Amino acid sequence: MKDRVKYNSVTEADVRFLRELVMPDGKVFSRAEIHEDFSHDEMGALHHFPDVLVEAASGGQVAAVLKYADSRRIPVTPRGQGTGLVGAAVALHGGIMLSTVRMNRILELDEENLTLTVEPGVLLMEISKYVEDRDLFYPPDPGEKSASIGGNISTNAGGMRAVKYGVTRDYVRGLEVALASGEIIEVGGKVVKNSSGYSLKDLIVGSEGTLGFVTKAILKLLPLPKKVISLLVPFDDLATAIETVPVIIKSKYIPTAIEYMEKPVIMCAEQYLGKKFPDHSSDAYLLLTFDGNSREEVEAVYEKVAEVCLRAGARDVFISDTDERQVSIWSARGAFLEAIKASTTEMEECDVVVPRNSVAEFVKYTKEVERMVGARLSGFGHAGDGNLHVYVLRDELDQETYLKKLAEAFSLLYARAAELGGQVSGEHGIGFAKKEFLAESLGPVPVALMRSIKAVFDPNGILNPGKVC
Amino acid sequence: MKDRVKYNSVTEADVRFLRELVMPDGKVFSRAEIHEDFSHDEMGALHHFPDVLVEAASGGQVAAVLKYADSRRIPVTPRGQGTGLVGAAVALHGGIMLSTVRMNRILELDEENLTLTVEPGVLLMEISKYVEDRDLFYPPDPGEKSASIGGNISTNAGGMRAVKYGVTRDYVRGLEVALASGEIIEVGGKVVKNSSGYSLKDLIVGSEGTLGFVTKAILKLLPLPKKVISLLVPFDDLATAIETVPVIIKSKYIPTAIEYMEKPVIMCAEQYLGKKFPDHSSDAYLLLTFDGNSREEVEAVYEKVAEVCLRAGARDVFISDTDERQVSIWSARGAFLEAIKASTTEMEECDVVVPRNSVAEFVKYTKEVERMVGARLSGFGHAGDGNLHVYVLRDELDQETYLKKLAEAFSLLYARAAELGGQVSGEHGIGFAKKEFLAESLGPVPVALMRSIKAVFDPNGILNPGKVC
Repeated sequence: MKDRVKYNSVTEADVRFLRELVMPDGKVFSRAEIHEDFSHDEMGALHHFPDVLVEAASGGQVAAVLKYADSRRIPVTPRGQGTGLVGAAVALHGGIMLSTVRMNRILELDEENLTLTVEPGVLLMEISKYVEDRDLFYPPDPGEKSASIGGNISTNAGGMRAVKYGVTRDYVRGLEVALASGEIIEVGGKVVKNSSGYSLKDLIVGSEGTLGFVTKAILKLLPLPKKVISLLVPFDDLATAIETVPVIIKSKYIPTAIEYMEKPVIMCAEQYLGKKFPDHSSDAYLLLTFDGNSREEVEAVYEKVAEVCLRAGARDVFISDTDERQVSIWSARGAFLEAIKASTTEMEECDVVVPRNSVAEFVKYTKEVERMVGARLSGFGHAGDGNLHVYVLRDELDQETYLKKLAEAFSLLYARAAELGGQVSGEHGIGFAKKEFLAESLGPVPVALMRSIKAVFDPNGILNPGKVC
Repeated sequence: MKDRVKYNSVTEADVRFLRELVMPDGKVFSRAEIHEDFSHDEMGALHHFPDVLVEAASGGQVAAVLKYADSRRIPVTPRGQGTGLVGAAVALHGGIMLSTVRMNRILELDEENLTLTVEPGVLLMEISKYVEDRDLFYPPDPGEKSASIGGNISTNAGGMRAVKYGVTRDYVRGLEVALASGEIIEVGGKVVKNSSGYSLKDLIVGSEGTLGFVTKAILKLLPLPKKVISLLVPFDDLATAIETVPVIIKSKYIPTAIEYMEKPVIMCAEQYLGKKFPDHSSDAYLLLTFDGNSREEVEAVYEKVAEVCLRAGARDVFISDTDERQVSIWSARGAFLEAIKASTTEMEECDVVVPRNSVAEFVKYTKEVERMVGARLSGFGHAGDGNLHVYVLRDELDQETYLKKLAEAFSLLYARAAELGGQVSGEHGIGFAKKEFLAESLGPVPVALMRSIKAVFDPNGILNPGKVC
């Protein structure tokens, strides 16, 4: 729909005007000055340069840029660290790329309300260091720590700890948002409860910059758990490993994280990192984490879960209770994406989420798809929350064959996910890459509602056009 | 805006048609057959009869009624148990009242995904009994246990345990919703993570039946904590009690619930229940609850909090670790609303929420308002989540004086809440009662967005007209 909107090109006069708008602390780069990095994100296949890159220094500047762009019908693509995987931060229609890189201040820690107020350009790793140094905890834990919090909010990022703690949306108490009209609104706040009209806050979270531009966020914090212990649990095969997960959930002892991993991916990570993984005895593993306020509290839970695993066919249970051992396992886990990437020429990712008790079935199906399509698939995932990352690898295939096999594999995978009651994206968002799959998965009525909501917030379609719906 | 829409009246032909639509298991009551109870909810001042009361027996029947009403431009007011406090379930414009009373089945417990699927008419107390009998836990805990889950979802109900566990929205994984068009959509699902387009689920939760009619809900469950202990903590005065709350939060030992109560309200509850409260030594109390999986785990936390309270000026700390003692305290707490109601002729409630560290200041201000306005105010509240219930009591005032003082008190209270970064409603919703206060508190831009969203879902304005925005 929106793709048919006619946008104006950026003129030299526009660039001059934008420069004035963000004086003196913001910055503007004209087309020739824009680095190649800004023509893509971590989705391999999509490349397009913006006409101008604006680094705004404040919410006021963001609002002024949006107002100007709206009046001139120039598209605006929001940009954090460009670590997204679905092309959401690519300026498909050119125009203005509006970066949060200069809006990177932690504004306030409020220990009485347990909130942290930040600008959108603050990095996830900066937030976790800042709060953990003060014995506080921001639970969302996506693999990509160099992502910006603005990007995390825009995709409703998930991460490892969703099993116990939930996702980014659960930790956003309030937002300041600049609208396409140039108006700035506040949604939510420091309050813990809120039943005051429609939850615009929850609508903005996960909307990938298509409804408004997040200029400030109030995050909810928790006390930092004092003790964290991981278990590495080897199984004979992947099916047995994954089928154990719903049994753990049913046991009512809930870990913080439950990840699954297979030997080929582990070996890939060993090679990539140049570091040995602590165990090589098995083809498949579950990696579980437990947290709590004392060793006794954590032990009481993990001992029950260890019993569940052994009864379900685990070969052994390795306990990692020193920082060093945990780091060695989790650094391997953290390197999976980059390691798989390094093992092939090109790849695309499927980020489905299915009910937890359908993970085993879905993973089994990926092996069938691998055979049916005749391309290498690799993957790993958050078994505990049903969110799987499956990669279709190009390897030595020629471009045309690869794209054909890729399309075939994706359509099989998404169809099966839908049959199992799943959704197209668990945590990476829709962006450009998943748009058609989203439309297919949701059906026409919800998509029509989403498009109409988009038109309410952004009648001229300037905010991140060509994305989501 | 919507109030100016012209609706058609319900004819005898409409009633006949509706009877056929809900055959054989639904039920239709014509005007003369409708009990007075259905002309109001628990908000005292608002009365209006619907023209026809329809008790639908399925989501399909709900959708068929909506489609018919939409085509005939007849307003539809959703109705659960009528326990709401803001007039949301009152048929302001007559028309159809669509009750969920026959849609009261628990449809599925899925222990592998920890979800419970229910129809909207299931009562909160039925849900808690059902899941707790199976060692599972649905954390939202509003005082009114005879409310329906549909009503709780529509108001994003909060309750006592929000300090630790959050509110209803946090426990709704998926919804089936009938739209004004008669189409049925599913939003969310059994999945734990979801970044698949705009979160229509979160938009529907808390929308008080103005965007769609919830016909089924998938709720998230947790394992039932094995040990619950309450502390009753007497203080010399209310200010000292409430000022202790942010100190507790800052200590990083987070209780499940933190309530505050004053002697006059406690005495009121004693009289109402005919039962003695376990302590009378003080003018003000904090009531705290802690839960966990073992006595040791719970003890470790409450001992720290008890120390914090004593250092902050508490006179003593009474531990209630038997069911019997906890019931005696919590039954008093549970009776506050009804007890205050029984102590006066008429009352209206203010359900503001403020940041936790502003509760003391707000409560102090209510005492000033009492003096300034010259009417009796009474209240209690969820000190731990900043949500306060303040009642303006009519007592022996004549109607006109009461309404004048009421308006004066409300406008002072809401203005101060807004100054403190608060919101109009913490958990009871906006309904009819708080509409103008919401508009004032949010300002024109968010309200305009909400109205446009309403028009997207319900272009003919038949869904619960005159409510929210």
